[in-house]
Amino acid sequence: MKKQFIVIGLGRFGSSLTKTLVEAGHEVLAVDKDISLVQEMAEIATHAIQADSTDESVLKELGAGNFSHGIVAIGENLQASILTTLLLKEMQIPKVTVKARNIMHGKVLTKIGADQIVYPERDMGIRLGRQLSSDNLIDYIELSPHYHLVEMKAPKAMNGLTLQQLDIRAKYGCNVMAIRSDEEINISPRAEDTIQTGDTLLLIGSSEEINELERKYE
Amino acid sequence: MKKQFIVIGLGRFGSSLTKTLVEAGHEVLAVDKDISLVQEMAEIATHAIQADSTDESVLKELGAGNFSHGIVAIGENLQASILTTLLLKEMQIPKVTVKARNIMHGKVLTKIGADQIVYPERDMGIRLGRQLSSDNLIDYIELSPHYHLVEMKAPKAMNGLTLQQLDIRAKYGCNVMAIRSDEEINISPRAEDTIQTGDTLLLIGSSEEINELERKYE
Ligand SMILES: Nc1ncnc2c1ncn2[C@@H]1O[C@H](COP(=O)(O)OP(=O)(O)OP(=O)(O)O)[C@@H](O)[C@H]1O
Ligand SMILES: Nc1ncnc2c1ncn2[C@@H]1O[C@H](COP(=O)(O)OP(=O)(O)OP(=O)(O)O)[C@@H](O)[C@H]1O
Ligand SMILES: [Ca+2]
Ligand SMILES: [Ca+2]
Ligand SMILES: [Ca+2]
Ligand SMILES: [Ca+2]
Repeated sequence: MKKQFIVIGLGRFGSSLTKTLVEAGHEVLAVDKDISLVQEMAEIATHAIQADSTDESVLKELGAGNFSHGIVAIGENLQASILTTLLLKEMQIPKVTVKARNIMHGKVLTKIGADQIVYPERDMGIRLGRQLSSDNLIDYIELSPHYHLVEMKAPKAMNGLTLQQLDIRAKYGCNVMAIRSDEEINISPRAEDTIQTGDTLLLIGSSEEINELERKYE
Repeated sequence: MKKQFIVIGLGRFGSSLTKTLVEAGHEVLAVDKDISLVQEMAEIATHAIQADSTDESVLKELGAGNFSHGIVAIGENLQASILTTLLLKEMQIPKVTVKARNIMHGKVLTKIGADQIVYPERDMGIRLGRQLSSDNLIDYIELSPHYHLVEMKAPKAMNGLTLQQLDIRAKYGCNVMAIRSDEEINISPRAEDTIQTGDTLLLIGSSEEINELERKYE
C-alpha cells in the first residue's frame, strides 16, 4: 500500500531516507528550511518545500495532518526537533518517527508522543563494531537476545570441505542455513555440499556459538 | 583473535563503536580532544586519552603505528578527519576505517589511503526507509543485488495456516528459512508447520518476490 510520508530535515539521514521511501513507491513530501537542500531533493521527492517546521501555521498550510507518517530528521537543534514532533502529534499524524541525539532527547520525545525514536549514529557504531570484531562477518540480524543470523565469508580453512566434513552443527551448535557463491544461493545445503573460498555462509546460532566458530577458523 | 583498535573521535558513532569492540573482547584506545568525552569513555575503553589527532608527535607518543586497526570517527571537521587518516596510514596501520560525511569526502579519503569508508547517516537512512516501507519488515540483509534475506512479522492473515496451505514458494518464489516464536527458532520448517500471530519469518528471495508477498498480505 502506498503511504504518505512527510520528512522534515534533509541532512544525510533525512535525504537518504527520502530516496529509499520514494524508490519503494511511497509519496514523500520533503521539507527543510535550507533552500539548497530542498532544491537537491526536488528531483527525488514527490514534493520538496522550503519551510520552518517549528511554525504551526506553515505545517497546517502543508496539510501535515493528512500524512500517514511523519519523520523528524532534525539533528543538532534539539528545540526544533522537539517542537516539530509536538506539532506533528497535535495534528494527529498516526505515526511520528524521530531521530534523537541521545537517550535524554529520546525520553523527551517519547513523553510528547513520538511513536518511534531512532539513534542512527549509535546504531551504526554498533553495526560497524560487530563487523570489525570479526574478519569474516559481513552482516547480521539479531533475531533475539540469544539468536543471531550472520552472513560470513567462508574462512579459507573451509575451502574444499563438505558440510559433513566440517560438521558445524555438531561441533559448534550453529546451523548453516544457506551458502552463496557469486549470485547463486543454495538455500537447502546438504551434507555433501562443498564450501569454496569466496563463498558466503548464512548461519543461525547464539552469539557464543558463532563467536566460537569464528575463533576456531581464524 | 584479540585485536588492537585505536578509535579517534568519541561522538555518538565512535563511542558506541568503542563499546561494541570492547564487549567483543578487543583492546581499544579511545582518543578525543574533548576531555569530557574521554572521561565518559574511561570506564569503558581499555585506555582513553585526550589528544589532538592532527598532531603527528602526539600520535607517535601514543604508539598509533602499533595498532592493527585505526578508526577515524571525526565528523564535522573535514580537515581533521583527512589529516588524521593521512597520519595513521603514514604510520603503517594495516587497516584504517574512516567515517565520511559525503561522497566527495570519501573519495579524498580513499586517495590518501583509507582502507574502508563508512557513511553512517546515509546507511541508517536507507535501513529505516526499508523498514518503514513495509509494515512487517523488521530487518534485512542484502545478500546480493538480487537476493535479500528479510525478517518479517507474520501477517495476521497467515495465522493458523500451515506452510503447505500458504504455499509461499510456489506462489511468490521466496523461501521460508526459519520461523521464530518468542525465543524458539524453528530452523527447518516443514510443510505441516503452522504460522501463528506474533511469529517472525525469515525469508530469502528477490526484492520483487518479497515485495509481492508483503503486498499480498497487507
Ligand atoms: N525548524 C526546522 N525546519 C526545517 N528544517 C530544519 C529545521 N531545523 C533544522 N532543519 C534541517 O534539518 C536538517 C538536519 O539537521 P542537522 O544538520 O542539525 O542534523 P544532522 O544530525 O547533522 O543531520 P544528518 O546527520 O542527517 O546530516 C538540516 O538540513 C536543517 O536545515
Ligand atoms: N583533531 C581531533 N583530535 C581528536 N578528536 C577530534 C579531533 N577533531 C574532532 N574530534 C572529535 O571527534 C568527535 C566527533 O566529531 P564530530 O562531533 O564533529 O562528528 P559527528 O559526526 O557529529 O559525530 P557523531 O555523529 O559520532 O556524534 C568529537 O567528539 C570531536 O571532539
Ligand atoms: Ca548536519
Ligand atoms: Ca548526524
Ligand atoms: Ca557532533
Ligand atoms: Ca554525525
